[in-house]
Amino acid sequence: MTVSSAQAHWEGSLMEGQGEVEFLSSSLGSVEVDWKSRAGEGGTRTTPEELIAAAHSACYSMALSHALAGNGTPPATIDTKAAVTFVPGQGITGIALTVKASVPNLTPAQFAEFAENAKAGCPVSVALAGTQITLDATLV
Amino acid sequence: MTVSSAQAHWEGSLMEGQGEVEFLSSSLGSVEVDWKSRAGEGGTRTTPEELIAAAHSACYSMALSHALAGNGTPPATIDTKAAVTFVPGQGITGIALTVKASVPNLTPAQFAEFAENAKAGCPVSVALAGTQITLDATLV
Repeated sequence: MTVSSAQAHWEGSLMEGQGEVEFLSSSLGSVEVDWKSRAGEGGTRTTPEELIAAAHSACYSMALSHALAGNGTPPATIDTKAAVTFVPGQGITGIALTVKASVPNLTPAQFAEFAENAKAGCPVSVALAGTQITLDATLV
Repeated sequence: MTVSSAQAHWEGSLMEGQGEVEFLSSSLGSVEVDWKSRAGEGGTRTTPEELIAAAHSACYSMALSHALAGNGTPPATIDTKAAVTFVPGQGITGIALTVKASVPNLTPAQFAEFAENAKAGCPVSVALAGTQITLDATLV
């Protein structure tokens, strides 16, 4: 069992305030967040949605690599992009995963099945049951 | 509507391989991930769970600040820690939020209600419907 933690410090209201998130478990340090970046109003700071995208793309890649290795066909490379859509007032309306993988000795049909299973089974996908996840996977 | 993206590059199997996650929407750059850190086997890299913790602590703080400001009682400070538990083979089994907030002109009972509502309603909580979220909130 592993417990991973982060801590946010926020000052003021949502629109005018600002926050800082400290990564407590790794050596990443701290990052700043604000509403302007989150609402697409020109900010360049990170957002909860970008952090979710990072978590999901990493978890998906790990799950897919594990399944492929278990099949005796470990991947050479897996590239997974996660795009998280946020609508102010509505929330996180969807996550689009786009995967390109190089896997020796595997047919496209076999790959498609592994890719779908990783989407359904990766721990972050399972935790994110409250939003819609789509997948576009290509064997390259 | 805002789309926030990140991309993971993974090479090799889960246990022996390694990955890098690039933040595509902000200026955060790239971070490394590996299984050893995720499984609590001594790694110091970030993990999908730490990234989820960062996303959740930031989103919760934003939601709470917004509700408090809407009440005419904007917070001086909100400090939210998110601790995400990962069990290999089982997945993300829970997220514990611990909140300490300084809010002028608010009673502890009123604060407790705002804190619970932010837990239920923050967009990241809603998306994370597949895991159990607990809350320990204190007005300081």
